[in-house]
Amino acid sequence: MTELLYEHPLNEKVRTYLRVEYLFAQVNHQLALGNESQQLGFFTSLFALIEVLDRNDIRPDLIKDVERCESALVGWSRHPSISDDSLQTMLQQAVRLQSELIRGSKFANVLKDDKFLGPLRQRFFIPGGTCYFDLPQLHFWYTQPLEVRQKSAQDWIGQLQLVERAISFVLTFIRERGQFQSVVADNGYYQSNTEQFELLRLNYPLEYGCYPTISGNKYRYAIRFMQLCDTQGRATSDKNIHFKLACC
Amino acid sequence: MTELLYEHPLNEKVRTYLRVEYLFAQVNHQLALGNESQQLGFFTSLFALIEVLDRNDIRPDLIKDVERCESALVGWSRHPSISDDSLQTMLQQAVRLQSELIRGSKFANVLKDDKFLGPLRQRFFIPGGTCYFDLPQLHFWYTQPLEVRQKSAQDWIGQLQLVERAISFVLTFIRERGQFQSVVADNGYYQSNTEQFELLRLNYPLEYGCYPTISGNKYRYAIRFMQLCDTQGRATSDKNIHFKLACC
Repeated sequence: MTELLYEHPLNEKVRTYLRVEYLFAQVNHQLALGNESQQLGFFTSLFALIEVLDRNDIRPDLIKDVERCESALVGWSRHPSISDDSLQTMLQQAVRLQSELIRGSKFANVLKDDKFLGPLRQRFFIPGGTCYFDLPQLHFWYTQPLEVRQKSAQDWIGQLQLVERAISFVLTFIRERGQFQSVVADNGYYQSNTEQFELLRLNYPLEYGCYPTISGNKYRYAIRFMQLCDTQGRATSDKNIHFKLACC
Repeated sequence: MTELLYEHPLNEKVRTYLRVEYLFAQVNHQLALGNESQQLGFFTSLFALIEVLDRNDIRPDLIKDVERCESALVGWSRHPSISDDSLQTMLQQAVRLQSELIRGSKFANVLKDDKFLGPLRQRFFIPGGTCYFDLPQLHFWYTQPLEVRQKSAQDWIGQLQLVERAISFVLTFIRERGQFQSVVADNGYYQSNTEQFELLRLNYPLEYGCYPTISGNKYRYAIRFMQLCDTQGRATSDKNIHFKLACC
């Protein structure tokens, strides 16, 4: 039985964290710059990432969340039955991340001011705005040796490695807060209160031919399973859907 | 000696033609939907194409241009030394295209109203707006069997095959109007009058390490060769650059 993991944020902060994590995955996936569409995909994701980081200053939130992780780790390390090296490693990681985050400036500033990326950036937000005659410098750049291009790409993404590490650290903690429980969505519908959860994680089987849509905030949430119709539209499922849910 | 072909439109009409042609190439290149980034690339290009076709009603221009091609073909076919089957084939093609274009409506209307594509479209114009939690239906669609997805993709792009054929037909004619001539850009700079040309085609060697930027209109144009700097910025080249130019 094939299952699909689906995550849904319950507040704006986690929404941005997940968006940034997703964009990092995209950028990294296309770092090989194997062909022109992969290169275009790389720049599209990189510029989206810069835009999201520029519009949402997530540094203060990350500092607070790393601090919270650190407190939790300190609490666990005092517990007599826990004496784990990996816990100490994580604690050191948290302390280092925190001081780096406090010292740092707004994440995307360096890349926003980059002389090559700067003029490209705005064109990528215009639908169809990246033709060769719009961006001759980019299409010339495509002719540079692959190792030169990959080096540049790695340098650019390297500028963002602090936020990548911090997001990954914090999201791991958030995800580990919840345990998967089996639940049923009657007629494709399930709702509950959240008690200040920040993230819902669903593990649902594909055999129902449905996908979840979620509306929610920090007080309550509702999950509605939808099916793709023959006409490629969508409608609520009328099945009782068994799935696993973790509230984090 | 590796050469690069670069084309620059001298009016808005040809600018849109080239943009549409470029987007079709992108869409077709990603029709295989081989992995998630290729799928994302496919939808990005498809929605950009729909947007460009929706914002610019190129149907009247295409009808006029196909008509112009037809007149030229009729003129050639009367010439005693020309009696070519392929000329007759093209003439038939022009007549058919013209009647199809006249009968048709605005190109992207069907796809704009598509129940599956419609809700996705707007999210693709938001930087980073295509996360799994923004578009759960798309991420569920990715789990459909490959042949189902490819069939849908081909059906969507099939809706636009008339404009694809017309653009290709007209651009072939425009391109064939000009012959490549050898010219020199002194200190990386070349300018001339256009006599109502619509399209510049440049064939330039990569060995200079420069790329052309062009400003121009239907009366005159200027070509300036630029080089990518070490700092990834750009500056005008001070070399005398030998290249080939066709004015169409």
